[in-house]
Amino acid sequence: MISFELSNILILVSTGIGLLWAVYNAYKLNRIKIGTPNQYNNFQDDYQDHHSQLLLEIASHIESGAAAFLAAEYRYIGVVIILLALLIFFIVEPVLGQAWTTVAFLVGALTSIISGFIGMRVATFSNYRCAYCAQTKMTDAFAVAYRAGCVMGFALVSFALLSLTILLGIYINWFIKDYRDFQQLFEAIAGYGLGGSVIALFGRVGGGIYTKAADVGADLVGKVENDFKEDSPNNPATIADNVGDNVGDIAGMGADLFGSFAEATCAALVVCSVSPSFYYHPTTFYYPLLVSAAGILVCFIVSIFAFVGEKESFDQVSNALKFQLILSTLLMLPALYYVAYLTLPERIFGLAPVDRQPIHAWLCTVVGLISGCIIGFVTEYYTSHSYRPVQEVAQACGTGAATNIIYGIALGNLSTIIPVFLLAFTAFISYSLLSMFGVALSALGMLSTLTIGLAIDAYGPVSDNAGGIAEMVGYPQDVRHRTDQLDAAGNCTAAIGKGFAIGSAALVAFSLYGAFITRASNSLNKHPLTDLGVNSPLVFLGLLIGAMIPYWFSAFTLKSVGRAAFEMVEEVRKQLAERPGIRDGREKPDYDRCIAISTKSSLQEMFAPGLLVILVPLALGLFLGPTAVAGLLPGILVSGVCMATSSANSGGAWDNAKKYIEADLCEIDDIIKGKGTDEHKAAVIGDTVGDPLKDTSGPSLNILIKLSAIFSLVFAGVYDKSAWLLCAMTTSSSGCPA
Amino acid sequence: MISFELSNILILVSTGIGLLWAVYNAYKLNRIKIGTPNQYNNFQDDYQDHHSQLLLEIASHIESGAAAFLAAEYRYIGVVIILLALLIFFIVEPVLGQAWTTVAFLVGALTSIISGFIGMRVATFSNYRCAYCAQTKMTDAFAVAYRAGCVMGFALVSFALLSLTILLGIYINWFIKDYRDFQQLFEAIAGYGLGGSVIALFGRVGGGIYTKAADVGADLVGKVENDFKEDSPNNPATIADNVGDNVGDIAGMGADLFGSFAEATCAALVVCSVSPSFYYHPTTFYYPLLVSAAGILVCFIVSIFAFVGEKESFDQVSNALKFQLILSTLLMLPALYYVAYLTLPERIFGLAPVDRQPIHAWLCTVVGLISGCIIGFVTEYYTSHSYRPVQEVAQACGTGAATNIIYGIALGNLSTIIPVFLLAFTAFISYSLLSMFGVALSALGMLSTLTIGLAIDAYGPVSDNAGGIAEMVGYPQDVRHRTDQLDAAGNCTAAIGKGFAIGSAALVAFSLYGAFITRASNSLNKHPLTDLGVNSPLVFLGLLIGAMIPYWFSAFTLKSVGRAAFEMVEEVRKQLAERPGIRDGREKPDYDRCIAISTKSSLQEMFAPGLLVILVPLALGLFLGPTAVAGLLPGILVSGVCMATSSANSGGAWDNAKKYIEADLCEIDDIIKGKGTDEHKAAVIGDTVGDPLKDTSGPSLNILIKLSAIFSLVFAGVYDKSAWLLCAMTTSSSGCPA
Repeated sequence: MISFELSNILILVSTGIGLLWAVYNAYKLNRIKIGTPNQYNNFQDDYQDHHSQLLLEIASHIESGAAAFLAAEYRYIGVVIILLALLIFFIVEPVLGQAWTTVAFLVGALTSIISGFIGMRVATFSNYRCAYCAQTKMTDAFAVAYRAGCVMGFALVSFALLSLTILLGIYINWFIKDYRDFQQLFEAIAGYGLGGSVIALFGRVGGGIYTKAADVGADLVGKVENDFKEDSPNNPATIADNVGDNVGDIAGMGADLFGSFAEATCAALVVCSVSPSFYYHPTTFYYPLLVSAAGILVCFIVSIFAFVGEKESFDQVSNALKFQLILSTLLMLPALYYVAYLTLPERIFGLAPVDRQPIHAWLCTVVGLISGCIIGFVTEYYTSHSYRPVQEVAQACGTGAATNIIYGIALGNLSTIIPVFLLAFTAFISYSLLSMFGVALSALGMLSTLTIGLAIDAYGPVSDNAGGIAEMVGYPQDVRHRTDQLDAAGNCTAAIGKGFAIGSAALVAFSLYGAFITRASNSLNKHPLTDLGVNSPLVFLGLLIGAMIPYWFSAFTLKSVGRAAFEMVEEVRKQLAERPGIRDGREKPDYDRCIAISTKSSLQEMFAPGLLVILVPLALGLFLGPTAVAGLLPGILVSGVCMATSSANSGGAWDNAKKYIEADLCEIDDIIKGKGTDEHKAAVIGDTVGDPLKDTSGPSLNILIKLSAIFSLVFAGVYDKSAWLLCAMTTSSSGCPA
Repeated sequence: MISFELSNILILVSTGIGLLWAVYNAYKLNRIKIGTPNQYNNFQDDYQDHHSQLLLEIASHIESGAAAFLAAEYRYIGVVIILLALLIFFIVEPVLGQAWTTVAFLVGALTSIISGFIGMRVATFSNYRCAYCAQTKMTDAFAVAYRAGCVMGFALVSFALLSLTILLGIYINWFIKDYRDFQQLFEAIAGYGLGGSVIALFGRVGGGIYTKAADVGADLVGKVENDFKEDSPNNPATIADNVGDNVGDIAGMGADLFGSFAEATCAALVVCSVSPSFYYHPTTFYYPLLVSAAGILVCFIVSIFAFVGEKESFDQVSNALKFQLILSTLLMLPALYYVAYLTLPERIFGLAPVDRQPIHAWLCTVVGLISGCIIGFVTEYYTSHSYRPVQEVAQACGTGAATNIIYGIALGNLSTIIPVFLLAFTAFISYSLLSMFGVALSALGMLSTLTIGLAIDAYGPVSDNAGGIAEMVGYPQDVRHRTDQLDAAGNCTAAIGKGFAIGSAALVAFSLYGAFITRASNSLNKHPLTDLGVNSPLVFLGLLIGAMIPYWFSAFTLKSVGRAAFEMVEEVRKQLAERPGIRDGREKPDYDRCIAISTKSSLQEMFAPGLLVILVPLALGLFLGPTAVAGLLPGILVSGVCMATSSANSGGAWDNAKKYIEADLCEIDDIIKGKGTDEHKAAVIGDTVGDPLKDTSGPSLNILIKLSAIFSLVFAGVYDKSAWLLCAMTTSSSGCPA
């Protein structure tokens, strides 16, 4: 077992390396100057000048659009964060006037905000550079996009780990007088997770609505009404669409996974704080942090390989990205082993019925790591058009849009089977080994390759945007072709990332649930949880209502996208009617108004789902006490995981079925059905249905699952103080408020 | 408290009245002679002769198609029932050689088969009579359809109650030596519920696939490819489509609700058998039966009112049907009160923590009754185009099929909120009053108006078929108009019936689950259920897998419909290619081949989902023991209820959004969008997507929920004997097989 100091040094070193690597990649990106002769561009003529000027102009539109969204979002976030901080300060803090949870909450929220900001900045800074480099070599364009991903991934994870470590260090020094304080300390630290999660709500739900309102709106009006090509600069909504990719896939995904990381770590800390093996050797509390630190180092080594070798074809790019995932998973296996043996005592007791060794902790992390990897590849199988399922969906377009949609729904449903079995057995095995601590470790194990996961995720929208920009600038077809290849490779790995995000959310939520139970079962409580039997009426009530919440939540987000897209359509129609010159490029459309609409509606529309996530557990807890919440959370979890997986994969399948048809790969009755056929039209309808499912309602469910759990964990003490309805209904008045 | 004899007499009287009323209605239907002068037809000329002949010919096609399906289905059912009976006989019966459970199983299955047969016969016997009477007066046509419904409803419920009472009487006389035998006795009686449920699996899943394969197939090929009108006799699949309505909505719905009735009664008996209030006064065991007996009497009185007054407009018919539902609910309130006071002892102990009185049992039934009624009307609100939600979906067609579908999905999701809250609180309140017995009573209360519910449900397909037949015969437009009005009114109430079927399935499944827990917690077991905590790893594993099962199951049924519809399309294409005269009516299409395809594929395709329902609980029970099953069942339940509600209501909404547009009610941008517009095409796509959701996968989930629960209840003893995987994994070997 290593000392406090050494643990801190190890974490500082790895986060230092992570941050330096992020800075180095940012520096490399900054070296690419547009419009001046350099390695990518040795011909300096009028043609190039004109295009470079246009490139910079479009880039500045996207940059300012993203900045406008962020500025508006931060205003909203500011208000919400302050309100929640006040709520926590006045009703959650066990001792009035202390602010341990409140401060942790603010630090978590701030870290997430800064990480999201960095991600957005680097994405809007890189996308046009990627398009620029795609003029000559795909390898260079790939490097730009992946460097952007690395900046995002390494900055986010290192920054998160660093701020949590500092917070923990300060709290341990100031807070702990007695080993019994650890439990309270970590309950306060859980505020950090809550802070991250609240920002994730804005990122995922708001971002998801933004991106799909712009996308669906642009598609509907552009393709359906005016026959604009995709990414046509004459479509007023096109810049908003490109901004949306950054808002949803970079800031949203980043905040989501930051939340998972923060929550998994907090859950691990809360549940292990009851074990004497831990509180007698407080350095062991650094174990969950060191798991993530090891992840940064491994991912650093792995990411270097990304820049080795040519990437001139789809296969080369796709293989390089998959190699990143597989190599990081393989290298994590020994790394996790050493971390466990370095940090944990030889005997771990007080968690499982029998004593455990570090190898059991290692096994928990490994089970999570491997099942995350398998879930990723299963997701790819169900959403890539290289495999049978998506091809079947594309074939179903032969009998029209309706059969396409029926098959897509069936595919989404089928795709839940393996991930759910994997998650169920991961939770079961890790629980059997180390109780809820094991579950938290399996979540941390799954997230240990997070840095690479984020890099790949951020790579996707950058190359996607690059394609859009290349189109708008009017670069020759081969440039667009290169970015399309990059984008397509990114799409496959993005699917993996989504599967991964859902899987980790499920494990994180279950471990948070364990932490909630730990906290709510405390016998000092007025309503300690005693009967948690799934057949007890309050638990069942919670379970049933919980299973319904994802439906409610999805309905909100789906309708939000519909409404916001409709507003976008109206605006575009208005612009086209007022200034007909826009249609053929004689007049510049007013991109900013479309951006403003997406921004405004996404922030307005996230109000209702946001309230739902917070109010349902709170109301149930206040009226019926913690037992009902103990049913609610697993209800949300099990129903939400299935729905999220199914929505995301149905959407992905429709998207790729459309691409399959567009790539002239779909043969029905021996005739190739390509762009412009009825089959293609049917596929476009499927794709449009899938858009909000896969990018708004599906991924938002991750947030629902995790946020309701961490919220309940932080507010567990409050639920305990009152159970109004229950007290009114039952004859016994023990523990009821006077 | 009344005596054994009086209880039996009361049940005999009420079932006798029910059966006589069914026979009387059948007699009245038989009095309508086609083609001979009578009160409906006093003009006997060539025109009438020709039409009557055609009518009889088409009717005989439908009748023989239905008979062909039943014959094929009974062969399959026969094999499955024999296999299951052998399985039960050899591994479930506690004492080898005894056959209590096996016999109960066979009686349950047989009763359900006979009831389904009667329903199908009367429906195919009445539909053309309804079309015939619609030539003159809507009131008469209504009477025909509703009489058919009454035959079905009263015959089914009376017959079910009678056979269960006789079985119970015989078993009590032969089985009981000691009060402790009651528990075993009722566990054996649970076989009756299982028998009914297995038939329901065939009815709902097979029937659902049949009806939608024919419907979607007929629509796709008819409308899309050849511009046939709906119900055109030139479409070879049209008879199969009409047969399908009977197979799915009459036999399927009937078997489903018969199953609910049988299971609710069995669950009530199993859970109350542990209470001394019951086993010391065995007549009290007749209480659940007398609830249903009272229901028959009340529904008899109510159904007489259906034939009073004119029904010449949609509103009159619709109001008459709703009046049936509301009046039966209102009259049940006092009836249930008297049954409770007549049958139950003054003090009920051993069920709830405190002693209870008959009024508490009454309250449980009332809560179920009323929440069933509200669920029905909420379902109507979300699926009728008289209200805002469906109108919004229709409006969304203005921006295309994709937005129509997104809004429909959102509507389905929203429509789960109120029913789930109602069910959760119904279960909670009734459990608080009388534990799991209370939950079973709430299910029985909800089902006490079953007879009227079934009559209304069966009324729908009869009037729907009548419309199709009128079209095929070539009756004047006003005849079709009359049947359309009847059908439309039936559609609204059919939606109510569907909501009702799902709601009762949820309560029934929860009470069966309670019975399962009662049985599996028996301390004489090797693996008695001790830790049922929702945070225990085995329960959580079961819960997560359970929540996924409805997705798996739906994927199967959706793809089955897709495949079967595709076969139908192929067949129709072949017929049209080989004999072009079919297209314009010069040649008769081969209806029977289409019927054979629907029959064959529906029976083949139900194999996989059927196995899934039975194998998953069995496998989980055998490998991981009853605790995992104790998580699995509520997982299936909570996820299945939400998905079933959402699927059924999305489908219903799309259907009615299409009808709203067809009725020229939909105004977009101040222009009325009717048949033939792009909006209508978008609505048709939504309707086709919704068809399998609302008539196959959605309602089939009811069966999944209930069958997995009753199967587990009957096989609880088997799960207990082994938990192989668990034993292999854990170090302790207590209770593991050697």
